[in-house]
Amino acid sequence: MTEIMQDNELIQKAAKAKTASTKLAKATTEQKNQALYAISEQLINEQAFILEENNKDLLAGKENGMSESLLDRLKLNEGRIKDIAGALIQLTKLEDPIGEVLDKWERPNDLSIAQIRVPLGVVGMIYEARPNVTLDASSLCLKTGNAVLLRGSSTAINSNKAIVNVIQHALESTDLPTDAVQLLEDTRRETTSEMFKLNDYLDVLIPRGGAKLIQTVVENSTVPVLETGAGNGHVYIDETADPKMAVDIAINAKTQRPSVCNACENILVQRDWASNHIADLITALQEKEVQIHGDEAVQQAGTNITPATEEDYGTEYLGLEVALKVVENTDEAIQHINQYGTKHSEAIISASAENVDQFFTEVDAAAVYHNASTRFTDGFEFGFGAEIGISTQKLHARGPMGLVALTSSKYVVRGDGQVK
Amino acid sequence: MTEIMQDNELIQKAAKAKTASTKLAKATTEQKNQALYAISEQLINEQAFILEENNKDLLAGKENGMSESLLDRLKLNEGRIKDIAGALIQLTKLEDPIGEVLDKWERPNDLSIAQIRVPLGVVGMIYEARPNVTLDASSLCLKTGNAVLLRGSSTAINSNKAIVNVIQHALESTDLPTDAVQLLEDTRRETTSEMFKLNDYLDVLIPRGGAKLIQTVVENSTVPVLETGAGNGHVYIDETADPKMAVDIAINAKTQRPSVCNACENILVQRDWASNHIADLITALQEKEVQIHGDEAVQQAGTNITPATEEDYGTEYLGLEVALKVVENTDEAIQHINQYGTKHSEAIISASAENVDQFFTEVDAAAVYHNASTRFTDGFEFGFGAEIGISTQKLHARGPMGLVALTSSKYVVRGDGQVK
Repeated sequence: MTEIMQDNELIQKAAKAKTASTKLAKATTEQKNQALYAISEQLINEQAFILEENNKDLLAGKENGMSESLLDRLKLNEGRIKDIAGALIQLTKLEDPIGEVLDKWERPNDLSIAQIRVPLGVVGMIYEARPNVTLDASSLCLKTGNAVLLRGSSTAINSNKAIVNVIQHALESTDLPTDAVQLLEDTRRETTSEMFKLNDYLDVLIPRGGAKLIQTVVENSTVPVLETGAGNGHVYIDETADPKMAVDIAINAKTQRPSVCNACENILVQRDWASNHIADLITALQEKEVQIHGDEAVQQAGTNITPATEEDYGTEYLGLEVALKVVENTDEAIQHINQYGTKHSEAIISASAENVDQFFTEVDAAAVYHNASTRFTDGFEFGFGAEIGISTQKLHARGPMGLVALTSSKYVVRGDGQVK
Repeated sequence: MTEIMQDNELIQKAAKAKTASTKLAKATTEQKNQALYAISEQLINEQAFILEENNKDLLAGKENGMSESLLDRLKLNEGRIKDIAGALIQLTKLEDPIGEVLDKWERPNDLSIAQIRVPLGVVGMIYEARPNVTLDASSLCLKTGNAVLLRGSSTAINSNKAIVNVIQHALESTDLPTDAVQLLEDTRRETTSEMFKLNDYLDVLIPRGGAKLIQTVVENSTVPVLETGAGNGHVYIDETADPKMAVDIAINAKTQRPSVCNACENILVQRDWASNHIADLITALQEKEVQIHGDEAVQQAGTNITPATEEDYGTEYLGLEVALKVVENTDEAIQHINQYGTKHSEAIISASAENVDQFFTEVDAAAVYHNASTRFTDGFEFGFGAEIGISTQKLHARGPMGLVALTSSKYVVRGDGQVK
């Protein structure tokens, strides 16, 4: 009986989301922005309630031995809620992509064809114990006229219920349907698996979280997935690279925030440059407490170098570790990157236009950099004003995804009786 | 041992395709067009060989009781080869999408960002016993700088081997790698299933064929799929529709070529229009030998009407049958279409701007039509000059897919030492 009820929750909410999506597709920019303002205000008004519910999750987490870093991700406080409320206001200032005419032309038979940007429809969002994603995902979906069905972590269930409650409360005062944002309270795996196959109701699934979560969604979903991926990125320093710039960029890409996907995990150094400057690079990395996994040439050039294994080249450390390797030339660097990289962000430091051109053409990645840190692969750094995630897939969207990634298009054809 | 060898065929060819894709990504428009010319010429030169091999498949097909229509799809002759050779020359005249700068901007920190169109990489094409698809897919992939791994039907294996042989022979005289086009000769299901999971080598899978084939690929692939779908399309005739235009369009959409996905399968008629004109519509359909599945109102208005069932509304007949239903208004028509349609092609025949606007906004489909036949949903009719298929999914590409659907993009970022 419980099972049936819970099955019903998924189907019922998915069906409601689909109905809501039709209304949302018609919503004006003003109506959508008003909803964002209303939610922002309601968040501040009801923050005591949200924090109280969040505290229940934190207590349960502590009891169940949740790690400090996970508890920190789960935690909300007045400052964080204020930041989120502010982000909602920022979102109102971004251009509404919906309704944009992407292309328009006439055919010899006088048919007029226009390609118009439309919402995707219903977005299924699957994520981990970060209550801020609940708001982030909801607001980005609302701005783009999509309904969203949220499936967060069971360890954040009280926080998520409170937040969605507040969002729906705010929506009641607006022209948008309250079913635009719904939370799936049943967080059992079986139910999530059903969600993977809900092609009749969901237009896209977006997993947000670690590699394992994303892999599970990609491997099991028949609903199309907007995939955000791991970043096993490289900085390649060629024979013409300015020594100071090369070291500065490598250090920044590796150490400025090592836990993120656009951080650098591998440094490749051309042999001639290495002969003159690798000692400086090793010193700079070790000053920042980076553990170096080096090939033989690197081991000879420095101390406290761990020998690099095949596995090291394929590892996204997400911490203060790096693989450092000497290569003969740009060809070898590119081959290494295309073999071990994850098609995310790859940089070349060079003064040779020829090497840069070759690198830009042959490296298969969402973003390629010349003389800049890989850390700029980010929707905000790119100037999109919002970010759904960073796509490492090649279909639909590649690289940092702004609001446009949450849209599709529709051909609108006008005639006066044309038949074929 | 055989098993291992055949496994090797898939992996080896996929790996070769990946290597070839790097070279193809750098090919100039001229080099790609020269390859298309060379293949076109070689096809004519070696047509005797191709027809001989095709004949083996035809004989085997007949022996195994293959239906006449399937044999016709399998059959090649001089005329068909000439058409295909001509299509290759047409393709050289289309604009090369690769290298196009989609967007370009500078950031406040002086980073210069450009979004450039690039090939997808390696395309896996899975299709049925139509040897023309072997050439069609190969040429579209070459034009867009993609390598292709073809998996055709075992019943067309001799034809496909001959065609790919001829293509590779032609490529030998060009600057493009011969591994740009390869055929998987092992057509066992297990091997195809392995192909579904070959994310390390394949960037996209494109199924071409019936609904069952497409469904199998969509449901089992972890490699992203470019989905082309079924078309359960509607023509809705509202109360303001010009009677002659409405009948003409309905007849054209239903009968001009009933076996294709942009043919109309359902006609919805507003009650007032029906009162005056449904008899004419029924007569016109029956003159074209269309079997009508009608609701009660339709049954009362005509003779020889089969009662329409719930199942009829969801059926893509692909033949001379149609579901005909009377609705109260545009709201009901839209609701019916969004419930039973497949998001492909939907038309409204109307003189009311208000109804048309509502229909265009609320109907969820790749292409929506006003006063024109749904039969125009086609890459050639849209003026794309080529067609990969018609997408009914919302990610990446929606509606008729031209060359651009076989491309992705890459962000190219130039700096002078920027760090974060």
